[in-house]
Amino acid sequence: MIILTLNCGSSSAKYQLYDWSTKKGLATGIVERVGIEGSVIIHKVPGKEELKVLHPCPSHVEAIQLIMDTLVDPEKGAIASMDEVKAVGHRVVHGGEKFKKSVIVDDAVLEEFRSIQSLAPLHNPANIMGIEAARTVLPGVPHCAIMDTAWHQTMPSMAYTYALPYSWYRDHGVRRYGFHGTSFLYTAKRAAVLLGKDPFETNVVIAHIGNGASVCAVKNGVSVDTSMGLTPLEGLIMGTRCGDIDPAIPFYMMNRTGMSPADMENTLNKKSGVLGITERFVDRRDIEDAAAQGDELAQLSIDAEGYRIRKYIGAYAAATGGIDAVVFTAGVGERGPQVRTVALRGLSYMGITIDEERNELSMTRNAETVITTDDSPVKAFVIPTDEELVMTEDTYALVQGTYDVHTNFTYSFQKPDYVNAERAASVGKDCAKRPGLDKIIVTPPASKA
Amino acid sequence: MIILTLNCGSSSAKYQLYDWSTKKGLATGIVERVGIEGSVIIHKVPGKEELKVLHPCPSHVEAIQLIMDTLVDPEKGAIASMDEVKAVGHRVVHGGEKFKKSVIVDDAVLEEFRSIQSLAPLHNPANIMGIEAARTVLPGVPHCAIMDTAWHQTMPSMAYTYALPYSWYRDHGVRRYGFHGTSFLYTAKRAAVLLGKDPFETNVVIAHIGNGASVCAVKNGVSVDTSMGLTPLEGLIMGTRCGDIDPAIPFYMMNRTGMSPADMENTLNKKSGVLGITERFVDRRDIEDAAAQGDELAQLSIDAEGYRIRKYIGAYAAATGGIDAVVFTAGVGERGPQVRTVALRGLSYMGITIDEERNELSMTRNAETVITTDDSPVKAFVIPTDEELVMTEDTYALVQGTYDVHTNFTYSFQKPDYVNAERAASVGKDCAKRPGLDKIIVTPPASKA
Repeated sequence: MIILTLNCGSSSAKYQLYDWSTKKGLATGIVERVGIEGSVIIHKVPGKEELKVLHPCPSHVEAIQLIMDTLVDPEKGAIASMDEVKAVGHRVVHGGEKFKKSVIVDDAVLEEFRSIQSLAPLHNPANIMGIEAARTVLPGVPHCAIMDTAWHQTMPSMAYTYALPYSWYRDHGVRRYGFHGTSFLYTAKRAAVLLGKDPFETNVVIAHIGNGASVCAVKNGVSVDTSMGLTPLEGLIMGTRCGDIDPAIPFYMMNRTGMSPADMENTLNKKSGVLGITERFVDRRDIEDAAAQGDELAQLSIDAEGYRIRKYIGAYAAATGGIDAVVFTAGVGERGPQVRTVALRGLSYMGITIDEERNELSMTRNAETVITTDDSPVKAFVIPTDEELVMTEDTYALVQGTYDVHTNFTYSFQKPDYVNAERAASVGKDCAKRPGLDKIIVTPPASKA
Repeated sequence: MIILTLNCGSSSAKYQLYDWSTKKGLATGIVERVGIEGSVIIHKVPGKEELKVLHPCPSHVEAIQLIMDTLVDPEKGAIASMDEVKAVGHRVVHGGEKFKKSVIVDDAVLEEFRSIQSLAPLHNPANIMGIEAARTVLPGVPHCAIMDTAWHQTMPSMAYTYALPYSWYRDHGVRRYGFHGTSFLYTAKRAAVLLGKDPFETNVVIAHIGNGASVCAVKNGVSVDTSMGLTPLEGLIMGTRCGDIDPAIPFYMMNRTGMSPADMENTLNKKSGVLGITERFVDRRDIEDAAAQGDELAQLSIDAEGYRIRKYIGAYAAATGGIDAVVFTAGVGERGPQVRTVALRGLSYMGITIDEERNELSMTRNAETVITTDDSPVKAFVIPTDEELVMTEDTYALVQGTYDVHTNFTYSFQKPDYVNAERAASVGKDCAKRPGLDKIIVTPPASKA
């Protein structure tokens, strides 16, 4: 069964085409500058050259049509006809409190998404546009919604309640929701596999560090706390988002400078984070380079970013009553050894001892590695995330009628012998480039399940 | 030498008169409703009946004059003449980055306080008014300033830098300052005494929980992080302050409700915290009573407040690389066993095992107690704070010329045989009321210093 997954942002549409029967990715790509002049599709089929084509996309309807046309292009495409696509899985950032698991989209579900649009004004409107456009272009197949927030609906009220007027929760839905749920689900299950433990007897803290970044406390296999809140602005220091600050600061600065609330909100989201500290850089590789050349603000940015993660690791170990492992994932988590070093410094008191050499070696998307010493009772793993796989599998299972919330469902990647074929095929190159990498790749112990 | 300490709020003036030679408190009291109709002084001299007298105080000048007159009142007073008072110590909430220790106030110091007024608009103007008024009424003696922020000036930049535009720090002083410094200094030094360790080889996390509340990470005897920030709004859940929230929430609610920024700031400071969650209570005793009667929001408030403290304990253990002890202090810290229970739940993985019975017993201001089990490698102490003593001793030493920053100065209460005479005289009553309390009172081990 061939499944298409779609992740529509305000001016973009990412996609993946996956054949569930053969467990193979058929194509991936993105349409950028949707609704803006200069729309372009970047399209990749395994074994073929990457394609980049300019094509006007005044809305997501044209973008999704462009994706379809490209997927069935006789030369550059991946399939003969869109009839082969049996279902579509859509990423929806904010599912509010209503959705605790993925669902098949019908008009009632869409209506619910529309009613909570204001909770994620930067994300949900685009997600909804994407679903509507895809239903128009592909009316004959089931469309599913996979929410970032669903994974976190297991949080207890003491973790999701802010110390704000309670009516704000009751009447306006102000509470912690959390995001990056599909990534946390994938990496939490994989961590249990690597530990050889039942996921529901496993405690981990997961740091998903990309341009956006958040941490999740997983106790007995379910989310009990997370650093993003009502919106994705809270918590860690991100590329351009400030994360945790004194809530009085925006008012102090608006009073002093005359900035408007809209300006301020924009600054906290778009001009803060590591960009704010360094005054120049968003990309962590640029920051590492500048720090190496003695740029003090770049070094401060690395230290502050890693230190914030370390405090969350400590806080969430306390929240879960002690952990089996720390997991790093996503762009910087997978390939940012400097931030990981700062994040794990001085944690031996709680059983975590980083192996600096292993940490330096772990720079691959193609394998799961361990970066703590062999005698470290609590492990630190680097686990490349695979959100598309979770979206694809949820969609497949929903269509098959076998799906349920993750506490009642076993994913394909929970098998000890699970292998991502594409990554497995590429890991040799990484090992050749980095002698010793092969020695820190983790092989799951024989199944206890 | 007799020393007067003054703590002037926007509409109040607290005072303590202390004889340094005999180490005895001579009088304490407060003038309330300064600048408001119905000003009243509440005055207490050990061994005499409490006095409460209405007297108009249109400004802090009249309030301080009233304090003077009361202190020398032949019947209700404590001394024969104000000439006996040789120095005055003033609490100043915000010392900015300039002051790393207490100072004798001169015109230049006052000018510096005025220049950073905007950093603490609710506190510093009153502190400055108090100093000016006291210098007017008592022109012949030295006046000293003891800053809440000074203790925290040892924080590294990665702890005090927000991920905001760096120019906000450079041009507007936006950084973490932290507060409750005199309380943290006192309890950190006392914890080292109780542990029988050199303070500069001691790591502790201190939770100062009163109506305002903050946590401090102390590594090798100095502050390396704290939960309050630019202002006292950040961090823990407090009586009416929200502490940590998603910084997007104020904008979300202003957009939805049309609240003004001033309204919002007021709500975060005055209508949030445990009052916000419970919708009714500020006093934690009322909350404990309501929770016992099944009030779900009251129970949620206790859980959320304690859980937030627990996360900070975990975070700050990670910040310091592991701790010797957790310390609870101030009103709720000293007499709030329910919040302490939630705060210490499930921390055995880091060596902290609470003894529930001891925790229930520890409800006194008059002794230092231990609330962990005997075999808990990391201790939890309840240490009644004594900010006035720090203010008095700083003032005394400044006047004597023996004072220096706390890393180069040894306080009287750092001696293993230090006793607060007044508290020692009262502890018998507490022990009589609570059988078993005497068994959890900590006696410092013989000095290693």
